[in-house]
Amino acid sequence: MNMVQRGRFITVEGTEGVGKSTNIEFLCSLLKDKDIEIVLTREPGGTPMAEELRNMLLQPREESVSEDAELLLMFAARAQHLENVIKPALERGAWVISDRFTDATFAYQGGGRGVDENQILMLETLVQKGLQPDMTLLLDLDVEIGLKRASARSAPDRFEQEKVAFFEKVRAAYLARAANDPLRFAVIDASVSLDAVQRQIAQAVNRFVESDNG
Amino acid sequence: MNMVQRGRFITVEGTEGVGKSTNIEFLCSLLKDKDIEIVLTREPGGTPMAEELRNMLLQPREESVSEDAELLLMFAARAQHLENVIKPALERGAWVISDRFTDATFAYQGGGRGVDENQILMLETLVQKGLQPDMTLLLDLDVEIGLKRASARSAPDRFEQEKVAFFEKVRAAYLARAANDPLRFAVIDASVSLDAVQRQIAQAVNRFVESDNG
Ligand SMILES: Nc1ncnc2c1ncn2[C@@H]1O[C@H](COP(=O)(O)OP(=O)(O)OP(=O)(O)O)[C@@H](O)[C@H]1O
Ligand SMILES: Nc1ncnc2c1ncn2[C@@H]1O[C@H](COP(=O)(O)OP(=O)(O)OP(=O)(O)O)[C@@H](O)[C@H]1O
Ligand SMILES: [Mg+2]
Ligand SMILES: [Mg+2]
Repeated sequence: MNMVQRGRFITVEGTEGVGKSTNIEFLCSLLKDKDIEIVLTREPGGTPMAEELRNMLLQPREESVSEDAELLLMFAARAQHLENVIKPALERGAWVISDRFTDATFAYQGGGRGVDENQILMLETLVQKGLQPDMTLLLDLDVEIGLKRASARSAPDRFEQEKVAFFEKVRAAYLARAANDPLRFAVIDASVSLDAVQRQIAQAVNRFVESDNG
Repeated sequence: MNMVQRGRFITVEGTEGVGKSTNIEFLCSLLKDKDIEIVLTREPGGTPMAEELRNMLLQPREESVSEDAELLLMFAARAQHLENVIKPALERGAWVISDRFTDATFAYQGGGRGVDENQILMLETLVQKGLQPDMTLLLDLDVEIGLKRASARSAPDRFEQEKVAFFEKVRAAYLARAANDPLRFAVIDASVSLDAVQRQIAQAVNRFVESDNG
C-alpha cells in the first residue's frame, strides 16, 4: 500500500475587499513550483450543495435571518466542504487553499454579530473533529478602504450591506484570534501596493514551508 | 397594555405515510370550534427560507450529504421557523400546530442515522432555548404499511429512498421518546381506519385541553 503524506491546509482571511481572492491566485503560483497538487476552494461554498448554501446566506432577502440560522448554515456548508472536498484532498496529499474558513465565523458571527464564542467553539468541534488549518494568512486593512475596493467590484451582498462599525468588530476579532495563535497566523499588511502585499505573502509562505516537517 | 395568554404548541410526528398531513387538518377543525387562532405549519419548513432548506434537504442529489450537514440544516431551518413564525404566533396567543418538529430529528438523524444524541440535545438547546411542544401526537404504524401509503402518493424524496430497516429504527426512536415523556406524548394507533384514528386524536386533544390550565 502507498503511504501518502497528508497535504497542508492553508486559509486566507480578512474583511471585505482586503484582497483575499486576488492574492490566493498568487499563493497558488508560489506553490505550483513545488510540484504539489493544489486544491483551491472557498467558504461558504466549495461543493455544489455548499455553494447553494452560500447563495442562500449572501443573497439579500426580505425575511430576516436569525443569528442562530446564519451560524448553523455556515457550519452546515462547512461540513459538506470538509467531508466532500477538504478531507479527501488532504488525504491524497494535496494542499488545500481556502478563501475563508472558521476564523471567518468567529470574526463575522462572533465579533460582528455578537454570537457567544462558546457556541461557535461547540459547532467547530462537532464539524471539524480537531481538524484545523496549518497556516492562516490574515490580510489586514482599514475597513473603509476595503469596502471601497469591494464596492467598486459588485453590488453589496447581505454581509456587505452591514455598516462600518460591524466590520470594525470583525477586523478586531480577526486580529485578536491572530494574536492568540501566532504560530498558525501570519498577519499581512494589506494597505500597501499589491506587489508589497505579495512580498509579505511569499515570505510567510516560505517560512511556513521551511519550518514544516510533516 | 394588553396581556395575552401565550398560545399552545402542538406537534404531530411519525414515520412516512402514517397520516400526519391528513390528520393535522382534522386537528385544526377540532380546535377551530374553540375560537382560537390556529397557525398550521410544518418542518423542515414554515418560512420562505426554511422551505428553501426543506427542498435542499429532501431533494435527491448526486452529492452525498454528510450527517453533520443534514443535522445542522435541520436546526438552521428550525431556527428560522421558531424566530419568524412559531414564537411570534405563541406570543400573540395563537396555537401552533406543526407537522413534525425536533422529535423528528431525534428519530431520523438520531435513531435512523445514528447521530450521537448529545449532539442533537446540544443543538436543541442552542436553537430552542427551553421552548418545547406542549403536546405531541405520535402516529404509530408498521413502517411497511406507511411506506406503501406514502409511495402511492408521490415519488420518493431523499428520506423516503431509505430502506425499511432505517424506518424501523426511526419508529423505535419515536416510541422510546414517547415512553420517556408520557405527559407530553399521546401515542395514536394509526393502523386502524381514519375514523378510528381521529376518534383517538379527539380524545387526546380533549384530555389535553381539559388538563391545560395556562
Ligand atoms: N494591495 C492592493 N492595493 C490596491 N487594490 C487592491 C490590492 N489588493 C487587491 N486590490 C483590489 O481590491 C479589490 C478587492 O480585491 P479582492 O476581490 O481580491 O478582495 P477580497 O478580499 O477577495 O474581497 P471579498 O471580501 O469581497 O471577497 C479588487 O479590485 C482588487 O484588484
Ligand atoms: N388511517 C388510515 N387508513 C388508511 N389510509 C390512510 C389513513 N390515514 C391516512 N391514510 C392515507 O395514507 C396516505 C398518507 O397519508 P399522509 O400524507 O397524511 O401521511 P403523512 O404522515 O403526512 O406522510 P409523509 O410522512 O409522507 O408526510 C394518504 O393517501 C392518506 O389518505
Ligand atoms: Mg473575494
Ligand atoms: Mg405529510
